[in-house]
Amino acid sequence: MTQWPLPLPMQRALSAARSAAAAGEVPIGAVIVKDGVVIAEAHNTPRTDHDPTAHAEMRAIRAAAKTLADERLTGCELWVTLEPCAMCAGAIAHARIARLYYAASDPKGGAVEHGARVFDQPQTLHRPEIYTGIGEAEAAAMLRAFFRERR
Amino acid sequence: MTQWPLPLPMQRALSAARSAAAAGEVPIGAVIVKDGVVIAEAHNTPRTDHDPTAHAEMRAIRAAAKTLADERLTGCELWVTLEPCAMCAGAIAHARIARLYYAASDPKGGAVEHGARVFDQPQTLHRPEIYTGIGEAEAAAMLRAFFRERR
Repeated sequence: MTQWPLPLPMQRALSAARSAAAAGEVPIGAVIVKDGVVIAEAHNTPRTDHDPTAHAEMRAIRAAAKTLADERLTGCELWVTLEPCAMCAGAIAHARIARLYYAASDPKGGAVEHGARVFDQPQTLHRPEIYTGIGEAEAAAMLRAFFRERR
Repeated sequence: MTQWPLPLPMQRALSAARSAAAAGEVPIGAVIVKDGVVIAEAHNTPRTDHDPTAHAEMRAIRAAAKTLADERLTGCELWVTLEPCAMCAGAIAHARIARLYYAASDPKGGAVEHGARVFDQPQTLHRPEIYTGIGEAEAAAMLRAFFRERR
């Protein structure tokens, strides 16, 4: 039996999530791709940076926008290991991310298919195409292991 | 007839909003107060900084957290000239802001009393006390003038 390989950007997002765990941060990783090229990659750093906004998605979006010298990431894809929260979903809309791919869903903190459902609001400025469940098992296992160790 | 003066933090937030307009940015300003002292003050800079996340609230929260060397702004107040969007409301919850004061409400982009209603979600991690309408007329007039000039 051969496991179908994960798309490369999600492999890199999962690898970023592993780096977060190693640094004592919640294991979440994100990657931004434009025209098939990774232009930003980040993991969660709120504790390390004393920054409540330093989620993986936010850091990747900010880095990509700096690289492109543009506040809009038109045509870009965001790959992330967990369903984005309201803050990150809002940033994804502001940045005009074209496609959002996430691994595990997050009933507690997610705001895409749960809670605030940011992209389903009629007032939303922008709704990306959304693909879920890619690498879900691995992303969820990493989060469970992280919180189990800290209990 | 004497106009009751605005609380000082909202006066400073409105002054920050004026600085934004002067820099060609949407006129929104924010101030963070802890124990009666202003510890951060910011205006919108997404265009200038090529950063879709650089809303006044986000910049003020990040600056305050750096100053306190703590990802949580426990006991802090956030004063802002416009109803926060989903991104900023999410950041306010993550930062555990104690009290949120805003001037004008924003039916198009706001996510406190409109749209995603981030703090009304049962899953929200934290709901600040919320006070609205302080300096509303001035904040709204500034925004209208800004967009009128650009049309």
